[in-house]
Amino acid sequence: MTLPARVQIVEVGPRDGLQNEMAVTPVAVRTQLIELLARAGLNRIEVGSFVSEKAVPQMAGTAEVLASIRVPKGVNLSALVPNMQGFAAATAAGVGDIALFAAASESFSRKNLGCGVDESFNRFARVAAAAKDAGLAMRGYVSCALGCPYEGKVDHTRVVETAQRLLALGCYEISLADTIGVGTPVAARELIQRVAQVISVERIAVHFHDTYGQALANIFACLEHGVSVVDSSVAGLGGCPFAPGAAGNVATEDVVYMLNGCDVETGVDLGKLLDATRFICASLDRPPESKVARARLAGESLPSQRCATNSE
Amino acid sequence: MTLPARVQIVEVGPRDGLQNEMAVTPVAVRTQLIELLARAGLNRIEVGSFVSEKAVPQMAGTAEVLASIRVPKGVNLSALVPNMQGFAAATAAGVGDIALFAAASESFSRKNLGCGVDESFNRFARVAAAAKDAGLAMRGYVSCALGCPYEGKVDHTRVVETAQRLLALGCYEISLADTIGVGTPVAARELIQRVAQVISVERIAVHFHDTYGQALANIFACLEHGVSVVDSSVAGLGGCPFAPGAAGNVATEDVVYMLNGCDVETGVDLGKLLDATRFICASLDRPPESKVARARLAGESLPSQRCATNSE
Repeated sequence: MTLPARVQIVEVGPRDGLQNEMAVTPVAVRTQLIELLARAGLNRIEVGSFVSEKAVPQMAGTAEVLASIRVPKGVNLSALVPNMQGFAAATAAGVGDIALFAAASESFSRKNLGCGVDESFNRFARVAAAAKDAGLAMRGYVSCALGCPYEGKVDHTRVVETAQRLLALGCYEISLADTIGVGTPVAARELIQRVAQVISVERIAVHFHDTYGQALANIFACLEHGVSVVDSSVAGLGGCPFAPGAAGNVATEDVVYMLNGCDVETGVDLGKLLDATRFICASLDRPPESKVARARLAGESLPSQRCATNSE
Repeated sequence: MTLPARVQIVEVGPRDGLQNEMAVTPVAVRTQLIELLARAGLNRIEVGSFVSEKAVPQMAGTAEVLASIRVPKGVNLSALVPNMQGFAAATAAGVGDIALFAAASESFSRKNLGCGVDESFNRFARVAAAAKDAGLAMRGYVSCALGCPYEGKVDHTRVVETAQRLLALGCYEISLADTIGVGTPVAARELIQRVAQVISVERIAVHFHDTYGQALANIFACLEHGVSVVDSSVAGLGGCPFAPGAAGNVATEDVVYMLNGCDVETGVDLGKLLDATRFICASLDRPPESKVARARLAGESLPSQRCATNSE
């Protein structure tokens, strides 16, 4: 089976990664990380969220991050926006795109967004209308696309329905998120085949967490079925609140290594990407989850390597 | 694409895993590990090597391991045998199968086996003749099947040629080993397609190291092309001497999780397998490389979890 000739990587480390760190990462560190990621050739970067600072202190200062970032033209910087309050802050901060985060699971929506799916879409509808007026593009997430920590298996029809509602609001792309990392390649492939019946596959992105080590296999299975947009996180930053101590998002380094090996173009320079890995791992004083980073940086005296050596 | 209904897992942790540990693992620990693996349903286990104790002290005592093991009938216990000296020791120890370890790279053969490929096959020929007389089955390895630390890319024809020589000696199965873990799914798939032109795919096994995090994706790509025998290592034990600090063999737990999710039968009980993970990680005082183990054992105060927390 042929893979797409080119894959777009959406770097979500500064948002989905750092929001899961225990400690709040300083604005200056987040800014420098994003600049290093852009320098590596990543041109779609999710920089943060305009959510309640009480609920998610790790994302406080997203406006300051956007204000201080210096990245080349053509690098798209997006942020999560849950409601009109967030939208006002996001537009004031001059964000590029905004992202809407919906759930395919009613229970997850209530516990994670604090409201049911329908109410979340009422909020999104107001945001979408305002975004249209402001000329802001919107990306949509469908969380729990392959499983819910409360409801277990999530029916494909719920995922399709949620994706269609996001499209109807004007989202240009739908990212199907395996929030708890329980997906395996056949399940991922079947979901893509189902969703692609109603949404052009060019508009489907995949967002995998590596909680059970399945992310790269899942991504490969999805690429075999025409998906060409992949979310990932530098150093594999990010956690799974439902499996403390478990791995986080799939690591951008490992995705790039796989795609390079498969002759799929990404525009990302792996060597420069590892500069971002070195920087953020040193700043957080923790090892990369990325196995490519651990192998390539072996021997360098980084927290990663001190710990990678322990953990060998 | 349909996957095989059933996959045989060949557990190589006690050999390929423990031989890469800095410290020598005591015979009693190796014995108990193998018994726990068998209890989990693994019925093909590589227990050690009959090699020079000076060269590989980690594998000293393989005869004692075999002598003290108590596993149910039907569990196949194999060991690596490089030459007639090893063969004599292996038969004296009453091993089940023996494994021959050949290289598709001349340089790797010289540095790793201490002789060129042709000379290694001269030795194997003597072992094969003796094994035939003794009624012992033989498995063959082709190392460096997707890359060599000295020669880089390895031509498919070298791999095919080496596999055919092992078959000609009477091996019932050929394990294609990505010794340095550089393979990616398309390369793995292309190798399988090439080798399957001359060897029935039922007789091809795959042996991946997760040095760059590619192993599960590679395995999935190979299963899509008819491979139904997979080598793996409990807790992801094993290293890559050419990338110190890097990950080891693909973890059996992660392979089983993927296959369970894909409705592929393995006969392995993941819960019981995690008993073996707990035991060996506590014995070695190190964390599992297996992400399934890290997620499932999260919260348990194991070295794995103490360190997994660090390494989060």
